[in-house]
Amino acid sequence: MPAIRIDETLVSTASRQPWSVRSRTLRGGTQEGVDVVEIDNGKLSFVVLLSRGMGIWKGQNGKTRLGWDSPVKDPVHPSLVNANDCGGLGWLKGFNEWIVRCGLSSMGAPGADVLVDNNGNEMEAFLPLHGNIANLPARAACIEITAEEIILRGEVHETMMFGPALRLNTEIRTCFGSSTLTINDTVTNMGDNPAEHQLLYHVNYGQPLLEKGARFLAPFKQVAPRDPRAAEGIDHFDTFDAAVPGFVEQAYFMELAGKRGNRETLAMLKNAGGDQASLLRFSLKDFPCFTLWKNTAGERDGYVTGLEPATAYPNPRRFERQKGRVITLASGQSRSTSLIVENLDTKKAVKAAEAEIKGLQKSAKGKVSQTAIARFSNI
Amino acid sequence: MPAIRIDETLVSTASRQPWSVRSRTLRGGTQEGVDVVEIDNGKLSFVVLLSRGMGIWKGQNGKTRLGWDSPVKDPVHPSLVNANDCGGLGWLKGFNEWIVRCGLSSMGAPGADVLVDNNGNEMEAFLPLHGNIANLPARAACIEITAEEIILRGEVHETMMFGPALRLNTEIRTCFGSSTLTINDTVTNMGDNPAEHQLLYHVNYGQPLLEKGARFLAPFKQVAPRDPRAAEGIDHFDTFDAAVPGFVEQAYFMELAGKRGNRETLAMLKNAGGDQASLLRFSLKDFPCFTLWKNTAGERDGYVTGLEPATAYPNPRRFERQKGRVITLASGQSRSTSLIVENLDTKKAVKAAEAEIKGLQKSAKGKVSQTAIARFSNI
Amino acid sequence: MPAIRIDETLVSTASRQPWSVRSRTLRGGTQEGVDVVEIDNGKLSFVVLLSRGMGIWKGQNGKTRLGWDSPVKDPVHPSLVNANDCGGLGWLKGFNEWIVRCGLSSMGAPGADVLVDNNGNEMEAFLPLHGNIANLPARAACIEITAEEIILRGEVHETMMFGPALRLNTEIRTCFGSSTLTINDTVTNMGDNPAEHQLLYHVNYGQPLLEKGARFLAPFKQVAPRDPRAAEGIDHFDTFDAAVPGFVEQAYFMELAGKRGNRETLAMLKNAGGDQASLLRFSLKDFPCFTLWKNTAGERDGYVTGLEPATAYPNPRRFERQKGRVITLASGQSRSTSLIVENLDTKKAVKAAEAEIKGLQKSAKGKVSQTAIARFSNI
Repeated sequence: MPAIRIDETLVSTASRQPWSVRSRTLRGGTQEGVDVVEIDNGKLSFVVLLSRGMGIWKGQNGKTRLGWDSPVKDPVHPSLVNANDCGGLGWLKGFNEWIVRCGLSSMGAPGADVLVDNNGNEMEAFLPLHGNIANLPARAACIEITAEEIILRGEVHETMMFGPALRLNTEIRTCFGSSTLTINDTVTNMGDNPAEHQLLYHVNYGQPLLEKGARFLAPFKQVAPRDPRAAEGIDHFDTFDAAVPGFVEQAYFMELAGKRGNRETLAMLKNAGGDQASLLRFSLKDFPCFTLWKNTAGERDGYVTGLEPATAYPNPRRFERQKGRVITLASGQSRSTSLIVENLDTKKAVKAAEAEIKGLQKSAKGKVSQTAIARFSNI
Repeated sequence: MPAIRIDETLVSTASRQPWSVRSRTLRGGTQEGVDVVEIDNGKLSFVVLLSRGMGIWKGQNGKTRLGWDSPVKDPVHPSLVNANDCGGLGWLKGFNEWIVRCGLSSMGAPGADVLVDNNGNEMEAFLPLHGNIANLPARAACIEITAEEIILRGEVHETMMFGPALRLNTEIRTCFGSSTLTINDTVTNMGDNPAEHQLLYHVNYGQPLLEKGARFLAPFKQVAPRDPRAAEGIDHFDTFDAAVPGFVEQAYFMELAGKRGNRETLAMLKNAGGDQASLLRFSLKDFPCFTLWKNTAGERDGYVTGLEPATAYPNPRRFERQKGRVITLASGQSRSTSLIVENLDTKKAVKAAEAEIKGLQKSAKGKVSQTAIARFSNI
Repeated sequence: MPAIRIDETLVSTASRQPWSVRSRTLRGGTQEGVDVVEIDNGKLSFVVLLSRGMGIWKGQNGKTRLGWDSPVKDPVHPSLVNANDCGGLGWLKGFNEWIVRCGLSSMGAPGADVLVDNNGNEMEAFLPLHGNIANLPARAACIEITAEEIILRGEVHETMMFGPALRLNTEIRTCFGSSTLTINDTVTNMGDNPAEHQLLYHVNYGQPLLEKGARFLAPFKQVAPRDPRAAEGIDHFDTFDAAVPGFVEQAYFMELAGKRGNRETLAMLKNAGGDQASLLRFSLKDFPCFTLWKNTAGERDGYVTGLEPATAYPNPRRFERQKGRVITLASGQSRSTSLIVENLDTKKAVKAAEAEIKGLQKSAKGKVSQTAIARFSNI
């Protein structure tokens, strides 16, 4: 386990609310050896998976569960995940997080791509689903406690000789007594040559936020179904149904509208009653592409929706490159991004967020395409 | 390690024979971190590999060794086994058990099959040899000691998002002072949709039970060689030769005869002297297909025979599906099976079992095909 | 961790120089669980990676660092390395050693080869880069301390059912106060049938030995570039440039000259000033093929050169077999080899080694081919 030390001096100055930080190693089955840090700020609690790329397994805001029920019950140790399994879908054998990063050098659907090998020759290689970062243990992690907040920092390396050498430095912050957490990520190209980079946050909700009548809200310029299957549901893309066993996922690609200047935007999932919601705040400079993943299948198969701010759409990387949406980091270059997750538990707070979204929507036309469009999808 | 706790009250009521249950974690090399439970009922002892799907590494009945000598010396931690290695034969890098399950969603020879991906589309995927279950650590395990017997229970999950979600609950029971163990397995489809399921017990013997002149006995309706190589040995399919380096395996597919009503049957390996044997008892309702695997190769290469009661023959799953031999479990459906392994160490006991087999054989014609047949093999 | 015990009686008789042997398990990130033994003879120190096939991570001779800076920072646990990743280049995700073995059943560039499966049938299988041995944990290891030297012994198994069953017994020896270490390796075919065997030592240097103006010296009969890229640099194949980001590797295949009788030879990397060098001594009977790998790329990408004595050239195994360079070990046969690494830190010692090389060169014509030749390369 990377060292987690708590500075007692700082702790004494911290909030008088009850709070806790706990570091432990999970035991038994596929979770054997998974290091986790459990953070409870007094209101919001969540579990960070150090051994799985600093993803966040599950959370709890007051009485509201944040996360979902995957058929994969435990956090799976990366050594048991073979990304190449099942035609490149092996990532799904470890997928059960509330918030999981996809990337860093590739993400999205599996597909062939062209890499340069050690001899400088192009070679075709198969990129499996969603890349490596969720299955790489953090190399270092530490906790800082200030008078206002708890900060967990971690470092994850995605490196190989003759391959990308990308470093993730993440900072997960939460203020005492708040319902909010902030993920500040910096990805650095440690290599001497330019390196491609992709990053998608797969932020996933099941019950209770996801339920029949739950709604997705974001200020959009354009929404389009990913494929014919998603097109079937385009007329109610922003509302959710109850769990239906056998339901096949639908994904919607979006361009959101952002505030002038900083281009900040927001996307929200609210429950049917409108008194519970989870709200993502981020800048379109960081994450110009947004995907809504609706998988309202049976509860045992994973009744879940994913809100996915990203650098690109989760198509195969080769396609995203063709569309100019794959970032290249120069040697030594860093890219810092921020994602704020606010968990709202009053009608008033939900309405205020809704008003903010509607305000931004006014500045955008809000086009909804009935079918997949060439700018977003390989059609 | 999943918690193994012994209830001391129960222990005090248990048999006065010397017996033991020991839980430990193997260290060093490829076995680093493999959790095992060693059970000794006073007569029969065996080692269960919690980290390898609750398989049974090796046993000892009195002075008789149960198991074989694989070129793979130690139990290999699943994290070091890549099933896709060597053209889908990677399972063989960890194969050294006395009793190992193959399955749960597929088993048998490697081969391409068609799966349904997360988008509901058919995709071709390659299924490696003998599936996942032997390389999945048990999620939970516990011991119960009663006045008569020792019971080890374990739970193994073979799950992925958008894939099969199968749970194995196994119960391995043995009475104090007996030479018998019973494996009661229940496989449950935890998903919302129907799921395919295969299960084969690979029960393997080397010396001393396997030797020149050792015999296989079972009441059969039909025996057929798997392929031309097995056809070469069809005339003496039920007798064994000494170790011959370079010997290429021969497999015989069989339909056995069972008792009326419960359709119980039995299959036995006895040594040349007829005073030692291992006897499998099971129901054809549980395991309609039986394979005898003869691999009397050199002792250093693995001089071994496998008795294999199963739900299907160990052909590629696609072929078995065509023949209607792949089970489908409905959502929530469980399937419970039982396999009894009796280890006989007197001529009298061996003869009694032989008489039982002969009795059942009378009810069946006992056809032996000289060549592979289309019902069993892809010819 | 395999047991490492130090015999205190022996220790008391050992050198009065300060020395140490330390066994520990690395923690955090991808190195979690990697067992290492740190040996310091008073002058030369080095770290042996028990969990990575008994390779040597890095060394230090007095003030001189031995090894290099890979983009892969930590020793990676084998359970996290999938050799099949990235089109068979997954080995590179763990590559950062000073001295690492490639083998034992195959090594060299990835490529398809024909194997024999359990049914005795030929099957095409893909052999990934550099084989398995670097990603197999040692099964056993022990330390012996004599009056003169420290000896670390280890055993690594590369086995599978129906596959090669090769055992490596290695002995790494170093005398108190010396700058030399010796690797005595014995590879044994534990199987009943003949087995192919390949072995290459990838001995790698970055700064300070590798620098602008550093030189490679060895008595050669024939040098040829591997490919057109290497041909570009043939005129100065034996000198090194400063780090150049984007530099594409160049490999030179050589036949060296050896002493009469024992056919011993040597190969050296010396720094620009000629007061530091690392010298390999070995017999051409053990290692008839030598490769110089020049990868003077940017420092962050791995500024490194590899001196590679081997049983064959690191082409795909199928090609090497065609050229008659793949060894076959009979059942039970062992092959013992020796590699001595001398680290020189005075001009006088470097000059003496140079004179020894020049003496051997006199007996050989020293042909340099401008282009790849068919005897060495697939052209």
